[in-house]
Amino acid sequence: MTTLPAHYTELCRLRREAATLGAVSSLASWDQETYMPNAAADGRAEQSAMLAELVHERATSPRVGELISLCESDAELQGDARIAANIREMRRDYDLATKLPPELVKELAETGSKAQHVWKEARAKSDFALFRPWLEKMVTLARRKAECYGTPEGGELYDALLNEYEPDARSAEVEKVFASLRERLSALIGELSSKGTPPSEAPLQVHVSSDRQHALGLKIIAAFGFDLDAGRLDVTTHPFCSGLGPGDTRLTTRYREDHWTDALFGTMHECGHGLYEQGLPKKDGLFGQPLAQDTGLGIHESQSRMWENFVGRSRAFWEWAFPVVNGEFGGALDAFGVEDVYRAVNTARPSLIRVEADEATYNLHIMLRFELERALISGDLKVADVPGEWNRRFTEYLGIEVPDDARGCLQDVHWSFGLMGYFATYALGNLYAAQFWEKIRMDISGLDDQFRRGEFGALLDWLRTNIHSKGRQFRAAALCEQVTGKPLEADPLLRHLEGKLRPIHGV
Amino acid sequence: MTTLPAHYTELCRLRREAATLGAVSSLASWDQETYMPNAAADGRAEQSAMLAELVHERATSPRVGELISLCESDAELQGDARIAANIREMRRDYDLATKLPPELVKELAETGSKAQHVWKEARAKSDFALFRPWLEKMVTLARRKAECYGTPEGGELYDALLNEYEPDARSAEVEKVFASLRERLSALIGELSSKGTPPSEAPLQVHVSSDRQHALGLKIIAAFGFDLDAGRLDVTTHPFCSGLGPGDTRLTTRYREDHWTDALFGTMHECGHGLYEQGLPKKDGLFGQPLAQDTGLGIHESQSRMWENFVGRSRAFWEWAFPVVNGEFGGALDAFGVEDVYRAVNTARPSLIRVEADEATYNLHIMLRFELERALISGDLKVADVPGEWNRRFTEYLGIEVPDDARGCLQDVHWSFGLMGYFATYALGNLYAAQFWEKIRMDISGLDDQFRRGEFGALLDWLRTNIHSKGRQFRAAALCEQVTGKPLEADPLLRHLEGKLRPIHGV
Repeated sequence: MTTLPAHYTELCRLRREAATLGAVSSLASWDQETYMPNAAADGRAEQSAMLAELVHERATSPRVGELISLCESDAELQGDARIAANIREMRRDYDLATKLPPELVKELAETGSKAQHVWKEARAKSDFALFRPWLEKMVTLARRKAECYGTPEGGELYDALLNEYEPDARSAEVEKVFASLRERLSALIGELSSKGTPPSEAPLQVHVSSDRQHALGLKIIAAFGFDLDAGRLDVTTHPFCSGLGPGDTRLTTRYREDHWTDALFGTMHECGHGLYEQGLPKKDGLFGQPLAQDTGLGIHESQSRMWENFVGRSRAFWEWAFPVVNGEFGGALDAFGVEDVYRAVNTARPSLIRVEADEATYNLHIMLRFELERALISGDLKVADVPGEWNRRFTEYLGIEVPDDARGCLQDVHWSFGLMGYFATYALGNLYAAQFWEKIRMDISGLDDQFRRGEFGALLDWLRTNIHSKGRQFRAAALCEQVTGKPLEADPLLRHLEGKLRPIHGV
Repeated sequence: MTTLPAHYTELCRLRREAATLGAVSSLASWDQETYMPNAAADGRAEQSAMLAELVHERATSPRVGELISLCESDAELQGDARIAANIREMRRDYDLATKLPPELVKELAETGSKAQHVWKEARAKSDFALFRPWLEKMVTLARRKAECYGTPEGGELYDALLNEYEPDARSAEVEKVFASLRERLSALIGELSSKGTPPSEAPLQVHVSSDRQHALGLKIIAAFGFDLDAGRLDVTTHPFCSGLGPGDTRLTTRYREDHWTDALFGTMHECGHGLYEQGLPKKDGLFGQPLAQDTGLGIHESQSRMWENFVGRSRAFWEWAFPVVNGEFGGALDAFGVEDVYRAVNTARPSLIRVEADEATYNLHIMLRFELERALISGDLKVADVPGEWNRRFTEYLGIEVPDDARGCLQDVHWSFGLMGYFATYALGNLYAAQFWEKIRMDISGLDDQFRRGEFGALLDWLRTNIHSKGRQFRAAALCEQVTGKPLEADPLLRHLEGKLRPIHGV
């Protein structure tokens, strides 16, 4: 198309304005977590609320709706695959932003805020009965929300929630992949626990100052290809990656001086998100357009997990990294070698808390939550039965007993403010990463040798070409088929975990 | 008034919205100078432009004009002195924001941007002829701007520009005070130069790392009473203080490892601005109202100069500070004593560059610029005659020859983008500070003893009560009379400088 029609360019301009204000809003959030003085909290809340309102106004204005309709019925625009995808995604976002009545949004926020407060107390006291009426309220509201969105074609009500984070995913499809993963993974964990010997974690327990860890983190992410001229690494209580705007991707991490791998793997994880953000085609006027935005949380998470687990926990990586780390740490690891660290960072062991779980068991924590959420929304599970069902499945999948609800169904904040449909994306990220990884190893020869030399450029190029540059043009499922030639399946992740963990645990 | 009328509360609400967006805009600027990655520059420019437009829309909307008119004719509101002042200031701001036609604002920005570019080259080459046509354009535009504002009652055209920074000041009044300052100060500088011996600056030349200087800076501003729970200190190329929002005042400084007092006095200076911002009554719903904003740049500068010069260059301060500084610096000043540092930081010596000038000569640099600006706007001085006139007066006031225009009339960026009416506020700040200082010394007994113990609370309380808490309720001139019982005069500053500098220079 030589000249784009006015209804499309105006639509893109309005979208860009909203995204520009969104970038400012992200800056305000980033600052709040990093450098904002404590006493500024109330003022910042007011600023953020005002920005959110300005963004919402622009995202939901009737004019945007009109323009999208015009673009949808413009045959010439629809004839361009990329533009058609861009319009399709703007429709999706517009519908998501306009389908919820403001009263429901308000009720979700207010009830969620109170429920979160009660959840804190309930978790502290390990008292599910205290939280139960609030979780009931939140499930009811989440169901109302799903009803407003509407059950997607060929799906179930819960899919309307899943769709917010994993566009057009169907839980029945997800469950099929999860089911085959669950069975073999649970068996693997059982095998490692009963027959294996966990590696020593002593190399991870040497004391390393935050300053040294920070210098190391910067060195590693630079080696991975994270552009520090277009990004930063700072310290926050809860690590995150914020793709603030064009040329501005900010990572955060936190340092534990008695367990240096927490920050290192956390930093590699956020760096994976950051590399994705830096690889999205935000330039050439595309900033703010769906074509320059991520595919969804599953693919986003596949990027973080790939750098954290598939690169960062590989032997080849440690052959390069060990002397680098030990040098940065002033010889703190002199008593250990590559193999010691490689084995230590690949310990798999059932544990109670999701956020402390290892690469393998983590997926079981996620699948448990996904199943319960789905059953809560369908009505197959009553809130009162959550603790019992949680504990029963936990023992079935992970082989250990849940001693109390604080370390069981009360451990996560998510449900207290109605966040349902989100957890699944964590496991999907691992699955996508594994499937991409097998393809990468076929496409790039000598990858391990490159890692041993501290070279990660060929991997990053592959990701740029096959994943990052696509933006939101394709759905995650379609992207996966396009890139790997197959729909998502559990085998690659299982092969990866079994192949690595068995020898390490001596099984 | 028990219930405020709707036209007043709506006006205040709109004002608060503009101020809230203004705070976000300040955050974006602060971030740009401190932590923003380089590659984010274009995106940030777009974000800042959009925020500026949103603030401008809210500041200039016809609704605001209507509401102000309603409030002006509301006898009950006008009967409350503080509310009447608030409305008076909102009128002032509204008029300033609406009187310039958008074409002129655009032309000022565009021509200023080009002129600034030429100025850079002209300064590098010390080639006034290159800059001359652009300065002519900018003077013409500044005059047009002043004409749009309109010559204030009882004033001259230049006062319309002065008024932007120093509300309602009249240059004839300013000139009266400046004239008496200029004569005696010039004589003092001559006397010190010809008959005195400058103190040794060796104590300032010991090498001190940025980290140590930063730790010291934090200690000093905390001692001054700067609330670090409601503010920060960071590093930028050009130091500044940004009163970002309620509970959020951010200072910046820069470190020269071979001249530690640069950062220390810079930090004390910005801290003075910051203490003022922290003392403005931004709480209780007043944030964004003129009553919670500064009186003008002269008073703002009086606060920075007071902490930098009247406190920070006093002997009593150094009796407390010397061991603190030397401790933070790991004994780097062991070879020196209190008196050495006290003398070294009070060296007065004519020099060519304003930003490097000392406490005393600085005022002469300012007055020279004020005179030339005033003559340029009135038409008494042609742009072509600027270098000659600059050099003639420079030698007359400071006793040294200007070797070239780069170190003469081309040294400052301000005029290149049309900033006229601003310089005077620097000297006014020194004058106000001196006049307040004499009153403070009468009001607070034992001030020197307090300083010797590192106690600055009584001084801060006095400033909070007499200056900070007043916001913009009064004009600077009225505030000065109210607080000191006299209109602004040059004698206090002269007494301060003569009394301190003569003995130090052995005159």
